[in-house]
Amino acid sequence: MDAQEAEYTGEVGLRAAAPTLAEIARTAGVSTPTVSKVLNGRADVAPGTRARVEELLREHGYRRKRGGAQPSKLFDLVFHELDSAWAMEVIRGVENVARREGLTIALSESAGRLTPGQTWVDGVLARRPSGVVLVLSNLDDAQRAQLTSRDIPFVVLDPAGDPAAGVPSVGANNWLGGLTATRHLVELGHRRIAMLGGPSRMMCSRARVDGYRTALETAGLGIDPTLIREGNFHHEAGYATGLELLKLSDRPTAVFAGNDLQALGVYEAARELGLRVPDDLSVVGFDDLPLARWVGPPLTTVRQPLVEMAETATQLALDLGQGRKPAATRVDLATTLVVRNSTARPR
Amino acid sequence: MDAQEAEYTGEVGLRAAAPTLAEIARTAGVSTPTVSKVLNGRADVAPGTRARVEELLREHGYRRKRGGAQPSKLFDLVFHELDSAWAMEVIRGVENVARREGLTIALSESAGRLTPGQTWVDGVLARRPSGVVLVLSNLDDAQRAQLTSRDIPFVVLDPAGDPAAGVPSVGANNWLGGLTATRHLVELGHRRIAMLGGPSRMMCSRARVDGYRTALETAGLGIDPTLIREGNFHHEAGYATGLELLKLSDRPTAVFAGNDLQALGVYEAARELGLRVPDDLSVVGFDDLPLARWVGPPLTTVRQPLVEMAETATQLALDLGQGRKPAATRVDLATTLVVRNSTARPR
Repeated sequence: MDAQEAEYTGEVGLRAAAPTLAEIARTAGVSTPTVSKVLNGRADVAPGTRARVEELLREHGYRRKRGGAQPSKLFDLVFHELDSAWAMEVIRGVENVARREGLTIALSESAGRLTPGQTWVDGVLARRPSGVVLVLSNLDDAQRAQLTSRDIPFVVLDPAGDPAAGVPSVGANNWLGGLTATRHLVELGHRRIAMLGGPSRMMCSRARVDGYRTALETAGLGIDPTLIREGNFHHEAGYATGLELLKLSDRPTAVFAGNDLQALGVYEAARELGLRVPDDLSVVGFDDLPLARWVGPPLTTVRQPLVEMAETATQLALDLGQGRKPAATRVDLATTLVVRNSTARPR
Repeated sequence: MDAQEAEYTGEVGLRAAAPTLAEIARTAGVSTPTVSKVLNGRADVAPGTRARVEELLREHGYRRKRGGAQPSKLFDLVFHELDSAWAMEVIRGVENVARREGLTIALSESAGRLTPGQTWVDGVLARRPSGVVLVLSNLDDAQRAQLTSRDIPFVVLDPAGDPAAGVPSVGANNWLGGLTATRHLVELGHRRIAMLGGPSRMMCSRARVDGYRTALETAGLGIDPTLIREGNFHHEAGYATGLELLKLSDRPTAVFAGNDLQALGVYEAARELGLRVPDDLSVVGFDDLPLARWVGPPLTTVRQPLVEMAETATQLALDLGQGRKPAATRVDLATTLVVRNSTARPR
């Protein structure tokens, strides 16, 4: 109670010290309506003026007061790239929460860039969404300051597991997934287990590989560096690297393929060499995309709960917009093993 | 030149006869700002008043004048259901055009209903998008009138091939796809070719089945009704019906599976019965989803150009919004056969 009161007093104190629009306008040497236009992302302000006002807003830590103009009935969702099979799962999760709250998704793609462009920021300031979820992309310091000053809450949905300091984010426990997948193979009796990772610059891939190592070490098994390879999370890498691994004289009896698409590439490599899954080779994927159930044989894989992750991120942004403080600014949802027909005891 | 001038005069004539907002207001017994609020989808109008004004707008064929208030930088995309694997392809197509035009997609799902709910209509009137594309869903007469009176252009993207009279729509040539798929099997030497359709209430399914029939008839082959089955376009139906077909004493040597997901179900049925694709059974899909390339063996299928269809529908809506008349209000893009490894000569 005391702590809460102290905090409350502190906040009131901060607000009292914060500059008004009129003060920002005076310092910038422009009118108050001009500052207001900049705040609302209106196009009819000279670029130089806009930059000066943005700088002052940032410098003074200006923050639009809650309870003034209401945010719109839109909720922004930004993808790094819209080409991934799991983007649909994320959209479904955001849509589940948005529909319940009477919000419509405003969908953008940052066209492969890790930071959305200025066009997107201008649009967001103009449409004032109730919140923003960014998938695999992030805001730079200036963009963060712009959204914060307009009281637009944002959360990063981060399946790549590369947490941005100070930004609320939702991810998955990739390390645990790697551990569980590998333990499953060890428990079936496999001893030569290959690891086909994704790009080493992606934290989610590193976490999965580390889980694999720990599973082997805690089982008292040695680690053979020739069995650990780097892929790119696409089918083609699974195929090419799968061929290399399966042509080794002392070939692995199981492959943890890093994700589902690479697992399908390993399937193809096995077919080409006349090896049957799971009789001659066990394969485990990661993600549990819908197609994992449909391929032959149905794929044993680690489920990453993308729909739930997206729901959590959306709800977190809306909570922040309501002034609620999250229990934690980084949440990782659990990954779980789904056993289907691509894994069996080694012969 | 003359025809154009005549048309132009005609339009001016119509405009002069159309009622103004003030006239609508007077007839409804409300103020002009109230009519304006209804036009802009504002919530602060009594339901009874709103209904009366809507009725008058519709009765008088009121149409907001072009060149007044600009539409927003949003473009509405509405799905019947967001769960289909090809929804992502459609989103990519709309996004390609939206990004080029500096527009952001406002994404909605009609939650399985074939007509979007009133919440969606209210939202659209308030946000005034530059255009609307509806996927597999349609507007009822009142909704059409509402969008038309606000000069918000809409197009139906209709992969199901169920053209709505008078509504601009973009589809695919499903009949030609069915014909091409079946001809490919006939040319390989197959004589017992099964057809696994989708639901018979879907026009796209009927068109594919008709294409199959015509391919057999023009090849001088008889049609065996026991080889024509109805599915539901999901994996499970492909599996269950595939089992039935492959257990026939005089089993087919090829199956045109109606779509890619059903084709994967047929793959599973074949595996279970120890039949190899394509050695013992040829399979053709429809759609060419990304996964068609990744399954084993890679699937021969009919490509439905969903990205291009979505691009065409988006561009058509924007053209209509600019007052351009389309050459045709119904456009069907061509389907093409993609030969991979699931089809071969019968043994």
